[in-house]
Amino acid sequence: MAFANSVLPKGGGKSPSPGRLASVYSEVQTNRLHHPLPLPSVLKGPFKLLDGPPSSAAGNPDEIAKLFPNMFGQPSAKLVPTGSVPADLPEGLKIGVVLSGGQAPGGHNVISGIFDYLQERAKRSTLYGFKGGPAGIMKCKYVDLTPEFIYPYRNQGGFDMICSGRDKIETPEQFKQAEETAMKLDLDGLLVIGGDDSNTNACLLAENFRQKNMKTRVIGCPKTIDGDLKCKEVPASFGFDTACKIYSEMIGNVMTDARSTGKYYHFVRLMGRAASHITLECALQTHPNIAIIGEEPIGKWAKVNQMDQADMRHIILYGSCTIQCGPCTCLGPFSIGLLLGLLPRIGLVAAKKQTLKNVTDYITDIICKRAKLGYNYGVILIPEGLIDFIPEVQQLIAELNEILAHDVVDKEGLWKNKLQQQSQLLFEFLPQAIQEQLLLERDPHGNVQVAKIETEKMLISMVETELEKRKSEGTYAGHFKGQSHFFGYEGRCGLPTNFDAAYCYALGYAAGALLHSGKTGLISSVGNLDAPVDEWTVGGTALTSLMDVERRHGKFKPVIKKAMVELEGAPFRKFASMRDEWALKNRYISPGPIQFIGPGSNNVNHTLLLELGAQA
Amino acid sequence: MAFANSVLPKGGGKSPSPGRLASVYSEVQTNRLHHPLPLPSVLKGPFKLLDGPPSSAAGNPDEIAKLFPNMFGQPSAKLVPTGSVPADLPEGLKIGVVLSGGQAPGGHNVISGIFDYLQERAKRSTLYGFKGGPAGIMKCKYVDLTPEFIYPYRNQGGFDMICSGRDKIETPEQFKQAEETAMKLDLDGLLVIGGDDSNTNACLLAENFRQKNMKTRVIGCPKTIDGDLKCKEVPASFGFDTACKIYSEMIGNVMTDARSTGKYYHFVRLMGRAASHITLECALQTHPNIAIIGEEPIGKWAKVNQMDQADMRHIILYGSCTIQCGPCTCLGPFSIGLLLGLLPRIGLVAAKKQTLKNVTDYITDIICKRAKLGYNYGVILIPEGLIDFIPEVQQLIAELNEILAHDVVDKEGLWKNKLQQQSQLLFEFLPQAIQEQLLLERDPHGNVQVAKIETEKMLISMVETELEKRKSEGTYAGHFKGQSHFFGYEGRCGLPTNFDAAYCYALGYAAGALLHSGKTGLISSVGNLDAPVDEWTVGGTALTSLMDVERRHGKFKPVIKKAMVELEGAPFRKFASMRDEWALKNRYISPGPIQFIGPGSNNVNHTLLLELGAQA
Repeated sequence: MAFANSVLPKGGGKSPSPGRLASVYSEVQTNRLHHPLPLPSVLKGPFKLLDGPPSSAAGNPDEIAKLFPNMFGQPSAKLVPTGSVPADLPEGLKIGVVLSGGQAPGGHNVISGIFDYLQERAKRSTLYGFKGGPAGIMKCKYVDLTPEFIYPYRNQGGFDMICSGRDKIETPEQFKQAEETAMKLDLDGLLVIGGDDSNTNACLLAENFRQKNMKTRVIGCPKTIDGDLKCKEVPASFGFDTACKIYSEMIGNVMTDARSTGKYYHFVRLMGRAASHITLECALQTHPNIAIIGEEPIGKWAKVNQMDQADMRHIILYGSCTIQCGPCTCLGPFSIGLLLGLLPRIGLVAAKKQTLKNVTDYITDIICKRAKLGYNYGVILIPEGLIDFIPEVQQLIAELNEILAHDVVDKEGLWKNKLQQQSQLLFEFLPQAIQEQLLLERDPHGNVQVAKIETEKMLISMVETELEKRKSEGTYAGHFKGQSHFFGYEGRCGLPTNFDAAYCYALGYAAGALLHSGKTGLISSVGNLDAPVDEWTVGGTALTSLMDVERRHGKFKPVIKKAMVELEGAPFRKFASMRDEWALKNRYISPGPIQFIGPGSNNVNHTLLLELGAQA
Repeated sequence: MAFANSVLPKGGGKSPSPGRLASVYSEVQTNRLHHPLPLPSVLKGPFKLLDGPPSSAAGNPDEIAKLFPNMFGQPSAKLVPTGSVPADLPEGLKIGVVLSGGQAPGGHNVISGIFDYLQERAKRSTLYGFKGGPAGIMKCKYVDLTPEFIYPYRNQGGFDMICSGRDKIETPEQFKQAEETAMKLDLDGLLVIGGDDSNTNACLLAENFRQKNMKTRVIGCPKTIDGDLKCKEVPASFGFDTACKIYSEMIGNVMTDARSTGKYYHFVRLMGRAASHITLECALQTHPNIAIIGEEPIGKWAKVNQMDQADMRHIILYGSCTIQCGPCTCLGPFSIGLLLGLLPRIGLVAAKKQTLKNVTDYITDIICKRAKLGYNYGVILIPEGLIDFIPEVQQLIAELNEILAHDVVDKEGLWKNKLQQQSQLLFEFLPQAIQEQLLLERDPHGNVQVAKIETEKMLISMVETELEKRKSEGTYAGHFKGQSHFFGYEGRCGLPTNFDAAYCYALGYAAGALLHSGKTGLISSVGNLDAPVDEWTVGGTALTSLMDVERRHGKFKPVIKKAMVELEGAPFRKFASMRDEWALKNRYISPGPIQFIGPGSNNVNHTLLLELGAQA
């Protein structure tokens, strides 16, 4: 590894090279550069691809078949060892790689993986890194990835090697630009590293190139710290493991602080907008007193009853307000008691936390019980997307967007009369600071910026009010001090764990093998992840097999459905079986900082282990 | 280590024992239990104490001598190896230990250290742990510390073994209670683990016990993550090393994120109310684009000019507002230009960032320069105590406290006319959210809660406004998105670094030796910390030698002066010599998570190394 020592500047010295070479590295960063990347045994020797049976789609296969006539039905492919390297594999490939969407630890290793594949198995190949995400493809902005350029990013966090972007290749004009770039660079293949949207886009590109009889093949790679891009063959998205371990380190520290001071309730909001996987995983790692899983009520509703979401919202709203909900024509003066009688299982869940008031009550109840046990402290985890799961809040925001777009917010508050009655009640129920956030924090289109709402502070304030009420009623005699935290950006760009480092390297190496073998429209898939790296399985899964359609503007759009927390899944069931104990007893675990050497350094996250264990 | 395995319950099982034994440990926590604690070589064999010359005080020695007639002038003691153990050392000691004030990583190891000392060197001794801080002494609430009780806390973060508290032993009645406890438990000695206030208190207790001819001796131990309790003989307070490394891990991650997305300015507020050591150390570890060191302007003012702080405030206020400041009688219609002419060095600093407006301008200027270089992102560190360093803000808060206590805040804003003119201007200059925080967030006495003011958000908002202005003037063409962070509680209870673990163990072991040798009124001091542990020096420093007096309510009160960031000190000078480069070039370092094994795991923080290096 004399290379690294000579290339990397010491002590802040200048370097003529771009990117990371201008940086100074910490001792841990330097050490990570030297960390060896193990490969699954199938990738160490000669291998060949075995195709499985034809695939279908996650939903609406007929529509998916129409949208992807060339891709639909493709088999998944599996790499298996073979005696000798197939003689007909081409050399001198030209491959592009692009990072799409938000950062996730390990992205640099995917690029290292495909680069090393090409170096070792397809001599005289070129790897182009498109800069700044899909826009780099459209504008043909790229960098020629050389060993010198890539090396300093090995096992390092971030996406800064070529940077990422959130543009999409959607319009015919944009597809045209992508074609032009592919032709100009004479691309044999393209690796798209991204989340559900980006992989859908990758498949559209694959379909388009094939339709035009272009040689450019497209392979996807599952990236997102949110952990919501997965299926049986693609058991995990990369970055989730590292991000959850970083958050859990912080949560564990805060727990020890709570137990030591004995006087704070720490409300921790965690990144993860659509799904609550991060919150669930962090709960399994640290055993908080409370963790709110956004999927819980709506998930069960949907399971019990096949009503559509609008109907559900009406019942939920109705249940919470016990007044007749304005736009609702289906229920009329139906009582919540009747509903509970009719649909006991729905009622049970609904009564638990389907409204903001009920989430507040759920938290407050546990705080009161803990106070009786002498605990006036605790740790509560909240998914960033919580309010997206609460229909009444969505409704309020929708009404506010409408009102703010057309009316003046007068100081006297007369504008509030334009809100539906339940929204008005909810608005008045919200803490003043949140009311102001809802009115002030608007995006350029005048819409409320939901992501900016500090849910953890809102809940602290609401719990505080409820506790004061109970205090005056004599049912609570403790003392409460809330501390708010948001753990988000800290986790997206950490140094990848040993697991993510190896997983990403294998994903990238596998993508190289798939492209080299002429595959297109697949997502790189590495399995058997609870076994030693040597025993991991490697292959590619048809992207169309992950897809369903959604109707938007009267047209069917293909989507890879986000994998939500499954209420019947092993991780949630484990959590559900333990949370009552965690609530009242303090079973805190402090995972400590991620270790790269020694005990625990090769541990895999609970979610993955439990899911794989349940499959086995 | 079969002990740990048998005592610690597996997988959430119950345990009959109190405290940590009810917890489940992570793999890293368990591994830390087994981490060996090295001792300085002088503590490994027989040693004796050598007294140095008589000591004085940090200031006003005559007053300190009056306040501590029995303690003042005591020599510092140094442990040196000797041929054999002195024959006259008593056995069967009864010692108490107390944790005082906020958490700092390593506190449990101090207790382990004194416990092991007693076990090994003063057979049949008893160690009492006073529960919940000094209140535990006064109420005689304690736990008998046994090997079984202590073991699960070895190398673990937090203070939960016996918990801490912020009570003080101040009144004659409280001293009486402490005496009663000392007599009841027949205490030979007491170890007080705390910050500047707690160690002052320890010395008062030592003086009091000696005055009453009681045998109970008192030794202090330097604890605070803020790093502001230190002097030549006590080169560091414990916990600072770990806390700064935890914050720096997060800052490094956020830096990589900033560089990857290219679109966020991360404003990171860091714990450390009085002094900015944490911000400075984190800056040295990570190389942010901007780090605000609170001491900078006021420190230089004080150095250049011997005016008292009230005078300084007037000039600062005056300089910022260029209007005549109300309560100021000394300067009259003096112009800032004249001031600058008279006192060029003061003017230079003053013009840089002595007011909120100037801090804003300093940040905005760098953001504009970076935009011209194509960087619309960055990382900015802000000490929690920043606003305590800005006199105009203190003034505004003082006036608000007065007004809010007596007047009604009318909706029309007429109450604002009661503010001095400069405070009114400043109030109007503040973002609306901060204005509301100032008016709403009040403590039970009606005072503004300064610690709750989110300085980082305030600065984001003010920078935003200034940038918009410059955009309209055509001097800025970039784009700005601020992201706020507060890193505080995450750092107080982390697993201690190898350095803090060893340092604390030595501090505790040394405290045992000092008490055993009959010393009182000393603070445990371990030096030569940049050498291997084996070569560390060990001794005790007279607490009175760290003291000065402050006049409060017409009386002299002894205080251990907080060690502020020295503008002439090596750490600040290193920072000052590099910050211009960091501002415009991106020299980010990502220290990564604290490692307990392998490269970097025994590194010591920059502040300590630079200070020790400068002394050498």
